[in-house]
Amino acid sequence: MKIVALAGGVGGAKLAHGLAQVLNPEDLTIVVNTGDDFEQYGLYISPDLDTVCYTLADLANQETGWGHKNESWLVMEHAVRLGGPDWFKLGDKDLGTHLERTRRLNNGQPLSKITRDFCKAWKVQHTILPMSDQPVRTIVETVGKEISFQEYFVHLKCEPKVIGFHFEGAERAEAAPGVVEAIDSAEAVVICPSNPWVSIDPILAVANLRSAVEAKLTIAVSPIIGGKAVKGPLAKMFTELGIQPSALAIIEHYQNLLNGFVLDNIDQDLTKMIGIPSITTDTLMDSLTKRAQLAQAMLHFMRRLL
Amino acid sequence: MKIVALAGGVGGAKLAHGLAQVLNPEDLTIVVNTGDDFEQYGLYISPDLDTVCYTLADLANQETGWGHKNESWLVMEHAVRLGGPDWFKLGDKDLGTHLERTRRLNNGQPLSKITRDFCKAWKVQHTILPMSDQPVRTIVETVGKEISFQEYFVHLKCEPKVIGFHFEGAERAEAAPGVVEAIDSAEAVVICPSNPWVSIDPILAVANLRSAVEAKLTIAVSPIIGGKAVKGPLAKMFTELGIQPSALAIIEHYQNLLNGFVLDNIDQDLTKMIGIPSITTDTLMDSLTKRAQLAQAMLHFMRRLL
Repeated sequence: MKIVALAGGVGGAKLAHGLAQVLNPEDLTIVVNTGDDFEQYGLYISPDLDTVCYTLADLANQETGWGHKNESWLVMEHAVRLGGPDWFKLGDKDLGTHLERTRRLNNGQPLSKITRDFCKAWKVQHTILPMSDQPVRTIVETVGKEISFQEYFVHLKCEPKVIGFHFEGAERAEAAPGVVEAIDSAEAVVICPSNPWVSIDPILAVANLRSAVEAKLTIAVSPIIGGKAVKGPLAKMFTELGIQPSALAIIEHYQNLLNGFVLDNIDQDLTKMIGIPSITTDTLMDSLTKRAQLAQAMLHFMRRLL
Repeated sequence: MKIVALAGGVGGAKLAHGLAQVLNPEDLTIVVNTGDDFEQYGLYISPDLDTVCYTLADLANQETGWGHKNESWLVMEHAVRLGGPDWFKLGDKDLGTHLERTRRLNNGQPLSKITRDFCKAWKVQHTILPMSDQPVRTIVETVGKEISFQEYFVHLKCEPKVIGFHFEGAERAEAAPGVVEAIDSAEAVVICPSNPWVSIDPILAVANLRSAVEAKLTIAVSPIIGGKAVKGPLAKMFTELGIQPSALAIIEHYQNLLNGFVLDNIDQDLTKMIGIPSITTDTLMDSLTKRAQLAQAMLHFMRRLL
């Protein structure tokens, strides 16, 4: 079964990793949000792309939930001593990625080619693609001020009250080479349990990408479990936007895009209120095995729907 | 006695360090070559400025002769594994300097202000200034090809045969704030034992800087000892340009700029062929004490000439 997964950071990376355990390399393409990308210390940083790549390469830092494993912090310590900002933590090994990616981008290589080369070096066999080679920047609209995503998410720790989002450059951006082709030849699209507002919407804002997804069987996994976000500001965002945070709100959010929905067992009660096919299972993915189990459950579900 | 020292990399840094040991902070300004500056991995690298700053901050790596002391190489190892270039070695601590300098330059801060702030953080009390805040790039003219300095010096290991040099941007560059003022208020200018072609000439190519030096008592220390360069490609350059490498060739090179000259004891025989005042002393600076001894000998010499 050929699958395309749309993924943001941590939650997306976990399910992508699960799918990679149960699908052959030629049967899985992971399309990753780059709306979070930004520049720090003159370096191009692509946090979601790195989280997905590191996770599939078994290089992810399990303790922190972000960054490279067995990390050290010499560069940053030294830069901070000279007055540099420390709100976005850049580890030494992680910096190797940022330096080489920045070098290649400055030389005119597209992000998708760089990602392919990095995955080869890291022995990642499944295909990981950025959503676009053109810049799309997620802007968080807050009361009185528009803030870039990392500024909102990391620097301001999600404190400002959200009133909306937009994606700068999305209208001009095209899906990266291979993305639309992968979706067209897939049997189903999986929307990973990432933040719909800031991880999945930027992907779907890339015009030719969204229309390709709309033509496919599409299944989402709820990033809200028992009314709470597993990680990050998702529940807070829903509340600030006047929406009760729940798995139902996720279905509502994706509107006509979904053909099936996956909820956590804890949300069993909600299934009768859902107008599309759904399953409940353990969606928390708090172990490596559970990632693969969720992926396997989804494959069964999707085969049933095809 | 108020002194301005013109310095390139290692040799310049050693004498600057010696002068810093025998002069009060308000009496010494070190003006450093930035013609070697370049970009690597998207980062702005200023090798001579770093060598001088690290040396005066007691952060210089004594074993390698370049870079930061107690250095590690995690970032570079990781970047090289992804296909990055390794010909210019960037240590982890050193990268902290490059990241923060790049960040500030990208924010529009001038190099001279950045250098002042870094020196403050490193507790360097004497003033270190880049020759200019505008880019000047040393180009090595070789048979059939013009090569940027670091490409020639580090990547190609000085192998191409040199036929000349020029300094891109020098005609438009102005001396950094404080440079001309420091020279004007100094009693003497010291040309450190750096490579005249690629370390001192770029400094003197900055127009208002050269004219300020010309108005002052100026003393040079020979970077050629017994017909050989202490370090680097200087002797090879002279030979390729058809000039016998010797302390005399250094005097010839600086022509009418010098009012006094310092040779190594080994070159005692040459003094009778020199048409300007000179002294011989131990100029090798192969220990910290010898740096200060040479500086002290120079101060005596300059007082005599004033």
